[in-house]
Amino acid sequence: MAKSPETEHPVKVFGWGSRDPSGVFNPIKFSRRTTGEHDVQFKVLYCGVCHTDLHMAKNDWGFTQYPLIPGHEIVGEVTEIGSKVEKVKVGDKVGVGCLVGSCRQCDQCTSDLENYCPKVIWTYGSVYTDGTLAHGGYSNLMVVDEHFIVLWPENFPLDIGSPLLCAGITTYSPLRYFGLDKPGMNIGVVGLGGLGHVAVKFAKAFGTKVTVISTSINKKKEAIEKLGADSFLVSRDPEEMKVAAGTLDGIIDTVSATHPLLALISLLKPHGKMVLVGAPAQPLELPVFPLISGRKIIAGSGVGGMKETQEMIDFAAKHNILPDVEIIPIDYINTAMDRLAKSDVKYRFVIDIAKSLKAE
Amino acid sequence: MAKSPETEHPVKVFGWGSRDPSGVFNPIKFSRRTTGEHDVQFKVLYCGVCHTDLHMAKNDWGFTQYPLIPGHEIVGEVTEIGSKVEKVKVGDKVGVGCLVGSCRQCDQCTSDLENYCPKVIWTYGSVYTDGTLAHGGYSNLMVVDEHFIVLWPENFPLDIGSPLLCAGITTYSPLRYFGLDKPGMNIGVVGLGGLGHVAVKFAKAFGTKVTVISTSINKKKEAIEKLGADSFLVSRDPEEMKVAAGTLDGIIDTVSATHPLLALISLLKPHGKMVLVGAPAQPLELPVFPLISGRKIIAGSGVGGMKETQEMIDFAAKHNILPDVEIIPIDYINTAMDRLAKSDVKYRFVIDIAKSLKAE
Repeated sequence: MAKSPETEHPVKVFGWGSRDPSGVFNPIKFSRRTTGEHDVQFKVLYCGVCHTDLHMAKNDWGFTQYPLIPGHEIVGEVTEIGSKVEKVKVGDKVGVGCLVGSCRQCDQCTSDLENYCPKVIWTYGSVYTDGTLAHGGYSNLMVVDEHFIVLWPENFPLDIGSPLLCAGITTYSPLRYFGLDKPGMNIGVVGLGGLGHVAVKFAKAFGTKVTVISTSINKKKEAIEKLGADSFLVSRDPEEMKVAAGTLDGIIDTVSATHPLLALISLLKPHGKMVLVGAPAQPLELPVFPLISGRKIIAGSGVGGMKETQEMIDFAAKHNILPDVEIIPIDYINTAMDRLAKSDVKYRFVIDIAKSLKAE
Repeated sequence: MAKSPETEHPVKVFGWGSRDPSGVFNPIKFSRRTTGEHDVQFKVLYCGVCHTDLHMAKNDWGFTQYPLIPGHEIVGEVTEIGSKVEKVKVGDKVGVGCLVGSCRQCDQCTSDLENYCPKVIWTYGSVYTDGTLAHGGYSNLMVVDEHFIVLWPENFPLDIGSPLLCAGITTYSPLRYFGLDKPGMNIGVVGLGGLGHVAVKFAKAFGTKVTVISTSINKKKEAIEKLGADSFLVSRDPEEMKVAAGTLDGIIDTVSATHPLLALISLLKPHGKMVLVGAPAQPLELPVFPLISGRKIIAGSGVGGMKETQEMIDFAAKHNILPDVEIIPIDYINTAMDRLAKSDVKYRFVIDIAKSLKAE
């Protein structure tokens, strides 16, 4: 008989998880492996709440395995290291993002693109190399191979900074890879949520001019005055969109709901690039003519490799790029998920794990 | 009152055209401008029959203006040149592809990408700078600004070669621009028609390994034995497609009918690029997850600029790349269009204009 999550490993831990597609979170006891030669064990201090956590808790994408203990924007303090660990020492502040394993041998892994390895092991929801289900940062303790550990920059806030480990790299990586990071470029950001507001900050730090594109005029003041965007478009206003047609070099589209692409493609200059980083469960409608007539690109991009994630966090620390967050206790998580589903958060919840998570 | 096509210009010409969305072709008399300072007048010798001609004749895309005299794979012999023409002399063999005008000033034009100029004037179906409707190569005489004239390579067949002016550049340009021209790369070609069979030939000339992907096994023998493709996949065979998943660096998708993208995207390696060069009238279904999980790209590409078109034709002549064609007289055009609609041609009809087109 298979062991239960509570007994399969020797190290007893606890967290909050969801046991079925209702997505309701409750306290849960489980276990983690002992610290292996290359492993880093750390006490979780903060963990961001990503929209993926909600999608996965509710099995929106159809492949969730329960119990699900999510969380992939995790920061903490090292409590133990394996005998061969060279990257960190006990007491160091570290982060873990969306991945905790990969084959380390394929073309992707040897190109520092572990996130695209066919055998990538996600921080939660994947089956780990030992056959057990990986569990994320809504928990008191993590054990992760040092290769997948990010060194936290000195004096960089742990609580506010934690969402960068997913929201940050998810937007930083495509801006870099698709060359949308050149000063003076015109960059659009679709959707002003957890991902979108960080995309605005990175794009501004790269020296580009940023246009926020949203369904709601209500976000205009905040986008421009608080986040520093240069302009704002209401995607449902055909006149406004028409005037802006052909003006953008690139777009980062963060929307994970089904939404029309035609008007967004029209905003691109010839040879412009639109990168989808939100994952709608259903296919989107792709008009082909507008792509052909402007040699335009639609691409997807998913988080980033470990080298680039470290580079991103160091860049963020240097340029003081920090998400806007609302710090919550763990027992607020069900309310937080309800609010997240309604986009009622500016812009990311972060759970204060160390202060609020107790063994029950 | 607006003048008729027959009387608006001083030079009397004749051709075959379509007068309504039935798409039926009949002889038609019209007129062309006198040869301007920068113009080249030439006698049409051959003109390829592109699928676009059929789409436009039947108003499939909803913007056809009648009468429509199509043809944008035109070769001929220069009969008169304007006083400032430097590129050609009377008697030279020349070609005209899909475009005959552009603004010559915008970012696209000054980057040799006239085909992406917002004011591009297509060889037929566009309104020319003088306010009259441009007419294509299903006619005895053309008058075109020398900038949009291609010099035909010496000893390169005029009849067989003519389709390169659209089918050739449409496939050559994306293979080059998207970097799918490196020896040893694995390139897929979807659809084995006028565009697809030329894509196979260019991709092979670049030294890549070519996989033809088609709905029908019937084309396998020909694709491999005659066109030199390295392998063949039946897109409707899920097992075959599964085995080939993740093997291609890039795909040129030439299909202009609605078709599923998911299985094709799955054939791409991570960071692979799929370029659509056929233009379905309806949007395609775009699954986003597979793009994100492999940082894959879907792009469009439409013909090429004049500099690249000349480069393409010179490359084709050097490497002896020639379409497979069926030469027809102009009065066969209605039957040819019926056969084209059923993909019953290997692989391109070319009209022998000089021999078969008579003033009626």
